[in-house]
Amino acid sequence: MHRAQIKLCNELREISPHVKNMKQLEYVVLARRVSQIKEELRQGVRKPYKEVIDVSWGDPHRAGLKPLTFVRQVLSTCLYPELMNSNRLPADVRQRAQRLLGGCAGGSVGSYTATEGIPEIVHSVSEFITRRDGGVPSDPENIYISPGSQWALTNILNVLVNREASTRTGVLTPMPCHSATTLGIMGLGGVVVPYYLSEEQGWELQVEDLHQALESAKGVCNPVALYVINPGNPSGQVQSRKSMQEVIRFVSERRLFLLADEVYQDCIYGENSEFVSYKKVLTEMGPPLSDTVELASFHSASKGFMGECGLRGGYVELVNLDPAVLKYIKTLFSTDSCAPVLGQLALDLMMNPPQPGDPSYPLYDMETQHIRTTLVHNAKRAVSVLNSLQGFCCQPVEGGAFAFPRVYLPPKAIQKAKEVGMQPDTFYCIRLLEEAGLLFSAGCEYGQKEGTHHIRFCIMAPEDVMEELLKRLTSFHTQFMKEFS
Amino acid sequence: MHRAQIKLCNELREISPHVKNMKQLEYVVLARRVSQIKEELRQGVRKPYKEVIDVSWGDPHRAGLKPLTFVRQVLSTCLYPELMNSNRLPADVRQRAQRLLGGCAGGSVGSYTATEGIPEIVHSVSEFITRRDGGVPSDPENIYISPGSQWALTNILNVLVNREASTRTGVLTPMPCHSATTLGIMGLGGVVVPYYLSEEQGWELQVEDLHQALESAKGVCNPVALYVINPGNPSGQVQSRKSMQEVIRFVSERRLFLLADEVYQDCIYGENSEFVSYKKVLTEMGPPLSDTVELASFHSASKGFMGECGLRGGYVELVNLDPAVLKYIKTLFSTDSCAPVLGQLALDLMMNPPQPGDPSYPLYDMETQHIRTTLVHNAKRAVSVLNSLQGFCCQPVEGGAFAFPRVYLPPKAIQKAKEVGMQPDTFYCIRLLEEAGLLFSAGCEYGQKEGTHHIRFCIMAPEDVMEELLKRLTSFHTQFMKEFS
Ligand SMILES: Cc1ncc(COP(=O)(O)O)c(C=O)c1O
Ligand SMILES: Cc1ncc(COP(=O)(O)O)c(C=O)c1O
Repeated sequence: MHRAQIKLCNELREISPHVKNMKQLEYVVLARRVSQIKEELRQGVRKPYKEVIDVSWGDPHRAGLKPLTFVRQVLSTCLYPELMNSNRLPADVRQRAQRLLGGCAGGSVGSYTATEGIPEIVHSVSEFITRRDGGVPSDPENIYISPGSQWALTNILNVLVNREASTRTGVLTPMPCHSATTLGIMGLGGVVVPYYLSEEQGWELQVEDLHQALESAKGVCNPVALYVINPGNPSGQVQSRKSMQEVIRFVSERRLFLLADEVYQDCIYGENSEFVSYKKVLTEMGPPLSDTVELASFHSASKGFMGECGLRGGYVELVNLDPAVLKYIKTLFSTDSCAPVLGQLALDLMMNPPQPGDPSYPLYDMETQHIRTTLVHNAKRAVSVLNSLQGFCCQPVEGGAFAFPRVYLPPKAIQKAKEVGMQPDTFYCIRLLEEAGLLFSAGCEYGQKEGTHHIRFCIMAPEDVMEELLKRLTSFHTQFMKEFS
Repeated sequence: MHRAQIKLCNELREISPHVKNMKQLEYVVLARRVSQIKEELRQGVRKPYKEVIDVSWGDPHRAGLKPLTFVRQVLSTCLYPELMNSNRLPADVRQRAQRLLGGCAGGSVGSYTATEGIPEIVHSVSEFITRRDGGVPSDPENIYISPGSQWALTNILNVLVNREASTRTGVLTPMPCHSATTLGIMGLGGVVVPYYLSEEQGWELQVEDLHQALESAKGVCNPVALYVINPGNPSGQVQSRKSMQEVIRFVSERRLFLLADEVYQDCIYGENSEFVSYKKVLTEMGPPLSDTVELASFHSASKGFMGECGLRGGYVELVNLDPAVLKYIKTLFSTDSCAPVLGQLALDLMMNPPQPGDPSYPLYDMETQHIRTTLVHNAKRAVSVLNSLQGFCCQPVEGGAFAFPRVYLPPKAIQKAKEVGMQPDTFYCIRLLEEAGLLFSAGCEYGQKEGTHHIRFCIMAPEDVMEELLKRLTSFHTQFMKEFS
């Protein structure tokens, strides 16, 4: 197809240089090798490990965390309502399933829903937001449920990125950054304008770096939006109210659209960290800011204690958008029928968990407490082990799903990586995989300051898996540093 | 957001004129009114009907068809594996659930999967295609599982539509056409180039009309692709092999990419109709055609006997694509993690239904036979009742999900519609809704020849619902024709 090809070549040529070492390149190397290794293990090839531990995704169940019983009971009953007749299931499970099916056309999760989601669930979401933000009102008309939050983000970007303009559209993007977003911006023909988080200050977002990023975009593109991730992925910081206020003033002055990726809002581990939503801070700042700054906030059933990534349920809330633009977004969203119904129902369960007194509450409470304790433990433990190793420096993991330590690779290792045509941190990850059976990902996938190297791994795993991982990492790393010293 | 707004206005201004009366406009009028009516019925307002019958979607469960027991048992077990211990479920259900969970990371449907889908299921799909096409090979590398087939179509269009070019990209599109696709093309900045199906010839696709469409695009846009729907939506025709061969020769001569929407392949009702895939016909035609024509074929768990629209599982198979383009598509697809896992599992069940001898087979066979008989009956019955009414003319429904009769509206009705600012067929549908509690959709949503009017309704409904619907339609229509005679 020569036409598409021509376009392809153009797009590849135009890819923003700072994000050249990208997910597909680095990730594919690792993904290919991990399949081979798994196959070798199946065939009985002897290795220093029996199983690969895959912590390269932000995916709680992958590494062995268990789904919440209440969630799975309700959803399976919605799929197969015959289960309603079983008295093995708690009464509140059956009632909830009944209620949720009442919102599905024909009483089936197999029916399409309204494009923006099942009305009752859109309302649940808006009530949740109001509760979370201590009473700040939320209008259901401004909420769209989507097949995962990434889908909503990509589609909002699609509205913001003007492909017809002679100057390309820029989006200010944190470095390091969740790679699907950088890929998405580029895939849509936009330019990633990186602003660097301050690693030494615990990956803090500093407003000077936003100014510098805007400066760097001059003559290159027309920045229209600022993307923030709070809590951060992969950086694990939790933004302070003060930093958020600065960001809000900045976007207001520069007339930027604020894209707040808040999918890790329930994942807070630092003793002094607290999640506050951008919407709440914006509202507190009062007019004119609170009436004018255009904000999209994203959340998801993929993260938090539920961790249901595979169901694909997320939402976006839009604040202060012009009604005409809102309508346009709705039209764009409506080219894709609707989010998966079970993902939508999962959102309802996330917004309205069992309450004290409900038959499912004791188990639900136990399971979520257990996950919370595990995550808080893992976050601390990972940082402390990493920082005890020579050649690692890890900022506190205050929130999110990942540890993202800096690794100081010996010059000989960097040289070796060069020889085999790999980024140094990919080289480290490949060796870690080969020798220790640990699948991490490389810092170069996420963007990092020139000359620095990092690795990323998910801390959402059972405690014993985390201990095993840290043990393998410690002995691999010690060996590696010796080899290249 | 003034920047987005400017872009918005541009896009609205540029919307292809032949598709101006679109889904959102016409559909919104009906959707708004139906919510009001449902609310009124709930509040006890007396109407000539107790319930609205909604057959405006291609959604089998909405109108009351039942999900397949086997499908729901397996999926609910995958969600809540505790059910595996219940001996109420057939052994093959438990085995299948076990096997499917083996393909999910961490054994959970809550984990992300590879972007292109769970490898085992991608293989199932490719084996299904080979079986279906009588041995024509299918390479799993060319298959992508997506959250519904529409998503895959939109994303392929996204690759084909070149927004940077000075001449806009055109896509030859049937009229009438499934409206999500026309919206999608326009949403991406492409131009819908309509080719009209021949209603009097049973909505046949005639190659002269393709030539004419290309002619009409001259000076307007650069056509790069041809979109066909077979069996048709809303037109209900099943293409003959001969017509498909002509289409293939046409796209080859004109170097067009062929987009074959084959989601209704299992929905064949005409005694002399048979579904043959474009891939099969292309392969039969031999080289050079079979090696060169670029084809994307779409299929879905939403349609057929399963009818699981809400799970959002579909796939695309790409044939003869340049590897570089394939890779680019993969990159684009990877900006959206993966299709919902339960939708993916549903595809596996569709590809590998229970076989004779399996414990679930007798019930599965009974249920699918029942649906098949119902649909064949409804297709015939709807056409025969419509054609018995003065002012209707309905082509045979050979396949698909819809009847799309032409309605000859009296001049006074057209005049009245004009006065109230509606398209004539929307006016008809609104009255049908108000007076008979039937939610149909209007032909103008799909594109129709100037001066003709149609209505569309889904025939996927239980027989008694279809009878009730035809009864209400008959008496409404008789009254309506009298009123405006
Ligand atoms: C920061 C961030 N945003 C969005 C997503 C995507 O989440 P979802 O599964 O809701 O699409 C992720 C997933 O890892 C993420 O880390
Ligand atoms: C012709 C056609 N293609 C695609 C679709 C979308 O199907 P899916 O649910 O797989 O996205 C529909 C739905 O009605 C359709 O009629």
